[in-house]
Amino acid sequence: MNKRFGILTAGGDCPGLNATIRAIVKTAHEKYHMEAIGFQHGYKGILDRDYRVLTPESVSGILTVGGTILGTSREKVFKNEEGDNRDKTAIIREVYDELDLDCLVVLGGNGSNKKAYQLQEAVGLNVIGLPKTIDNDIVGTEQCFGFSSAVAIATEAIDRIHTTAHSHNRIMIIELMGHHAGWLALYAGVAGGGDVILMPEIPYDIDHVARAINKRAEQGKEFSIVVVAEGALSKEEAAMKKSKRKEYLLNSPSAGYRVARAIEKATGLESRITVLGYVQRGGTPNAWDRILSTKMGSYAADMLHAEDYGRMVALIDGRVGSVDLAVVADKVRYVEEDDRILMAARSIGTCLGDE
Amino acid sequence: MNKRFGILTAGGDCPGLNATIRAIVKTAHEKYHMEAIGFQHGYKGILDRDYRVLTPESVSGILTVGGTILGTSREKVFKNEEGDNRDKTAIIREVYDELDLDCLVVLGGNGSNKKAYQLQEAVGLNVIGLPKTIDNDIVGTEQCFGFSSAVAIATEAIDRIHTTAHSHNRIMIIELMGHHAGWLALYAGVAGGGDVILMPEIPYDIDHVARAINKRAEQGKEFSIVVVAEGALSKEEAAMKKSKRKEYLLNSPSAGYRVARAIEKATGLESRITVLGYVQRGGTPNAWDRILSTKMGSYAADMLHAEDYGRMVALIDGRVGSVDLAVVADKVRYVEEDDRILMAARSIGTCLGDE
Amino acid sequence: MNKRFGILTAGGDCPGLNATIRAIVKTAHEKYHMEAIGFQHGYKGILDRDYRVLTPESVSGILTVGGTILGTSREKVFKNEEGDNRDKTAIIREVYDELDLDCLVVLGGNGSNKKAYQLQEAVGLNVIGLPKTIDNDIVGTEQCFGFSSAVAIATEAIDRIHTTAHSHNRIMIIELMGHHAGWLALYAGVAGGGDVILMPEIPYDIDHVARAINKRAEQGKEFSIVVVAEGALSKEEAAMKKSKRKEYLLNSPSAGYRVARAIEKATGLESRITVLGYVQRGGTPNAWDRILSTKMGSYAADMLHAEDYGRMVALIDGRVGSVDLAVVADKVRYVEEDDRILMAARSIGTCLGDE
Amino acid sequence: MNKRFGILTAGGDCPGLNATIRAIVKTAHEKYHMEAIGFQHGYKGILDRDYRVLTPESVSGILTVGGTILGTSREKVFKNEEGDNRDKTAIIREVYDELDLDCLVVLGGNGSNKKAYQLQEAVGLNVIGLPKTIDNDIVGTEQCFGFSSAVAIATEAIDRIHTTAHSHNRIMIIELMGHHAGWLALYAGVAGGGDVILMPEIPYDIDHVARAINKRAEQGKEFSIVVVAEGALSKEEAAMKKSKRKEYLLNSPSAGYRVARAIEKATGLESRITVLGYVQRGGTPNAWDRILSTKMGSYAADMLHAEDYGRMVALIDGRVGSVDLAVVADKVRYVEEDDRILMAARSIGTCLGDE
Repeated sequence: MNKRFGILTAGGDCPGLNATIRAIVKTAHEKYHMEAIGFQHGYKGILDRDYRVLTPESVSGILTVGGTILGTSREKVFKNEEGDNRDKTAIIREVYDELDLDCLVVLGGNGSNKKAYQLQEAVGLNVIGLPKTIDNDIVGTEQCFGFSSAVAIATEAIDRIHTTAHSHNRIMIIELMGHHAGWLALYAGVAGGGDVILMPEIPYDIDHVARAINKRAEQGKEFSIVVVAEGALSKEEAAMKKSKRKEYLLNSPSAGYRVARAIEKATGLESRITVLGYVQRGGTPNAWDRILSTKMGSYAADMLHAEDYGRMVALIDGRVGSVDLAVVADKVRYVEEDDRILMAARSIGTCLGDE
Repeated sequence: MNKRFGILTAGGDCPGLNATIRAIVKTAHEKYHMEAIGFQHGYKGILDRDYRVLTPESVSGILTVGGTILGTSREKVFKNEEGDNRDKTAIIREVYDELDLDCLVVLGGNGSNKKAYQLQEAVGLNVIGLPKTIDNDIVGTEQCFGFSSAVAIATEAIDRIHTTAHSHNRIMIIELMGHHAGWLALYAGVAGGGDVILMPEIPYDIDHVARAINKRAEQGKEFSIVVVAEGALSKEEAAMKKSKRKEYLLNSPSAGYRVARAIEKATGLESRITVLGYVQRGGTPNAWDRILSTKMGSYAADMLHAEDYGRMVALIDGRVGSVDLAVVADKVRYVEEDDRILMAARSIGTCLGDE
Repeated sequence: MNKRFGILTAGGDCPGLNATIRAIVKTAHEKYHMEAIGFQHGYKGILDRDYRVLTPESVSGILTVGGTILGTSREKVFKNEEGDNRDKTAIIREVYDELDLDCLVVLGGNGSNKKAYQLQEAVGLNVIGLPKTIDNDIVGTEQCFGFSSAVAIATEAIDRIHTTAHSHNRIMIIELMGHHAGWLALYAGVAGGGDVILMPEIPYDIDHVARAINKRAEQGKEFSIVVVAEGALSKEEAAMKKSKRKEYLLNSPSAGYRVARAIEKATGLESRITVLGYVQRGGTPNAWDRILSTKMGSYAADMLHAEDYGRMVALIDGRVGSVDLAVVADKVRYVEEDDRILMAARSIGTCLGDE
Repeated sequence: MNKRFGILTAGGDCPGLNATIRAIVKTAHEKYHMEAIGFQHGYKGILDRDYRVLTPESVSGILTVGGTILGTSREKVFKNEEGDNRDKTAIIREVYDELDLDCLVVLGGNGSNKKAYQLQEAVGLNVIGLPKTIDNDIVGTEQCFGFSSAVAIATEAIDRIHTTAHSHNRIMIIELMGHHAGWLALYAGVAGGGDVILMPEIPYDIDHVARAINKRAEQGKEFSIVVVAEGALSKEEAAMKKSKRKEYLLNSPSAGYRVARAIEKATGLESRITVLGYVQRGGTPNAWDRILSTKMGSYAADMLHAEDYGRMVALIDGRVGSVDLAVVADKVRYVEEDDRILMAARSIGTCLGDE
């Protein structure tokens, strides 16, 4: 009998989800004659028995469409709201059996892939994960789909700021996404030619930042562009956070605004701020993400056929492969000091806030 | 003898300045054999005798370039910093005579066109103005160059937010430029399909806004998009401002954040915010602005030839013409209730905050 | 009783059709409580009784979508294929009555608006037209929706060619749409800074073109960009066409390739060609077209309410109004010599092929 | 004493050249205090002693600029035009010594890297190569800078064609660059969701192509999109080419037009064609190319410091490294059957023309 598998998208959305769904469903159908069941709104769709059959026809034309045709949610699987007495994992097992699924395919970030792993461990589901996040912070893969599109959008915004900055004499601050890891700020910062890049992995010293900016002013440069990840912290803020004190947030919950005030104070120069927000998650996936999504989705179908369960599709040494979900679950991939793009950023003179 | 004129760009920069400079200089040179002198950094360049001859060659290739090759400043002409004892208007008259200029061409917003008018009245310069501003709020012209590009950029941002909003259940707020007039928020809001558009001309009642959002939620719509001009005020804030009390700014100087809090409080829904900032001023002018700039710049050269001084180039009844600078100076063009795009916004069901 | 109207899109598609449908349906419904019936595939949908009710919900989310949700066709209304004995106009009248329509709203180009007018004259339908075409060649309106988007796309292509042209020493030729009128070539040519613009209205003399190109080479310019409308003809070709001889097409049916060979022969320089094709019709409408579509669609609903039939929505003196369909039908709007953008093109030194 | 190196860009230009120059010069200067000499117009600049010192200031602001600030040429190094009696290699050696260079850094495609290798072998220059080409066909590296940008542009064009194709019933053909290898057609074809992709590596059988198109028509799909590399050949054409007969070119030198006629004949359907041409080479590099360029350029400076000569910077297993120029020279990297993206294309049902 032909295989049948479930598929869901969970967590925050990002470009490339639909492109990936399409590649999985088309390959599974055309190459292996498998059947796909799409759950609506992530894990919630299993609990609510909210699903539909996905055919090549039903995924036709979605390659270029942002968001996800399946919807997402941040439904908890191992924890209930007060007053909710359902045994959620039991229901999931039940629905999985009812629908006679051979595997559950989960497109998600850190949290969703962790849940997939736990469902395998707790109730014995076969699972396959796929790494989606604009934050690019999933362990085990060199790249997640969605990231390239977000970098492209953020870079375009920095490009625009560049033009207008030329005609004035200001510090232009742009806050990008990235609570835990600085991938997006680092890549967009380098691609956009940012003068200062501040990210969670490297708590910054405002004196170093001010020195870099003043040096540019002395060289007659008319402006400086400061790219800030939303999780960036000064050394003082990082210390407070470590000791679980959140006073620094009282000043402003936005890292961009906190940096703006600190720089204005330290340099006496005027600053202007952009908070890019959800613009970074939206729109059609760029060509690169569509290609990565198509490769990863098609590979996931191969894994389904080969019953290569318990693993997440990953980019390893520049090639699509897979990694054990146990390695992935519950970890965050940070930018390391020997990362080539970080090294390149330093070597062309970018200030990372620590020197 | 052939005419010679000065040219400068003043105030905040915007896309289309270079395209306009190019059209003026090329037409003046090719068609009328006039000579152009470009002052650097706006009126400051006259005071500092910082200028250069502009030829067709020196403006070649700048059509697509954002910002301004001449630089800008917000130099005051009729007022001195403490300790500065220069008679600025006298210096301007002096430089104008030294260089044997027939006219001074000013590319600027409300303030700069006003200064041009005052220089004509006070020291007898011949002047011609051109209307540049992304705010589109100059009296006497239906459109300013820079505006179309800013609308395009802001619309693209709203488009991206649309995609991601579909997959969640949130209120997405985007703050756009526009301190005094709501043109940009209105146009981008309509072009981007915003559900609520808040602008300075129409103080909003948060209850109306909340009702519009709740109605959408009841209809099963997953999200609402709220477009906010940076000068938008609630009825209460507008009253405070009128009586010169600025307490409302203490809450947050950003209209987007103030609206976000008010909506969250009134609806209980979560919101996400984008502050687009200087991204709106940057990048290459779009095709429409390049065409408007080329038409207006070429027309300004015709005016120079015809000695049609004391006027600003303007779009009137859809055609390029000119208007007396006396009409322009020191006024702001607001969105009126009978504006066709405002009427269209209302008639397709957009909430403007007042009903 | 509330009014009910039919709506269809006919002819080649273009950006802005959906935005216009949306504005008509939403305004008709929200403001006037009218009912809209959408016919599929243009006039064919009436003949086939292929239609559906359009509600604000069914047009939600289509603002940004290219193409048309109703489909189009080039169905003839007053002429039958061999073997087809239907009395088409009688069927149209029949369906119109069956559905109890008060008016038929037609979104189309020259041909479709003509058919609308003829249906009014021949079988007494109430009709309202809206001007859609990327060619911008409909009489009675200063602009058609779809045009601005096509100009933007073509300009972006010219921009890209500019960059690469800088590094070589070549003639870069780009063929744009425009069989009868040169609006698109003219606007994109000016916006993109084309050195030569060839269009149907101005048969070109290859010697003038070669002279312009050689002059640039002498000035040390590394390249020349030649923008060619697909309907552009040399003086010789124009003469042949006038005497109904089409030999010139044997050489190549593409104006771009014909121009390329002629220029290579006349200058000895190498050329490279781009034929932009249907790329010009595609993608999301730009902000300007969405605004024009929204204004025109909303205005059409006002006309429905006012029973202002027999007219086409139009942009007149920069404002949305309407024009008698009798004026529109069966004519083409050409670029005239006193067109301001044509004059501006000449005055900045662009070669139009005639001098 | 500090090192001094020469740098040149040769062959066709592509996005990323300036970003790479900037990274080399900045890293060499900031990190290693080396001096850079830029030759104008490729190898021609050495022969003409046409060069200038490149400093961090002189490369500031070029990250986003398309083309190359150094200019390029296709100057032959080992072959003279008739009447040219110069000993070119001797001159190159002479200039290299005069300028006291430690190394010559060449940014080029297959031909230019081959020349670099030959200069090392023939006259003992130290050389380092960097792989630039939108064709992505340089042996030894998984990716060349310029390729990602070209894929993005071509994908955007296909996206636009998609929209308009939906509203008709046609075969839309788009011809992309790629004389020898099909990388660009394959990547853009997959990213754009092309139904048929034809490339040089896989001579096509028109019957297979027609079958794929007819199958889509039977499934009720309104259109098919055919992506054609300019070097794509049918089996018959490939056989002719192999036996050095070029009659097939008489029909049309453009693969797109040849495919169009063959498909029209085989299916009876109408086709429309786009020839994207030099649009693919132009414009600002996309974010991905800027990052690759920055990494590769910075790495090249590290190689200069380490005197790691005779090698080309390369992407190997997803990481920046280098490869012996002997391996690179005079070869073309083709798409292989086991390429993951080709496999993915097949597995989602794309027709490659051979089945």
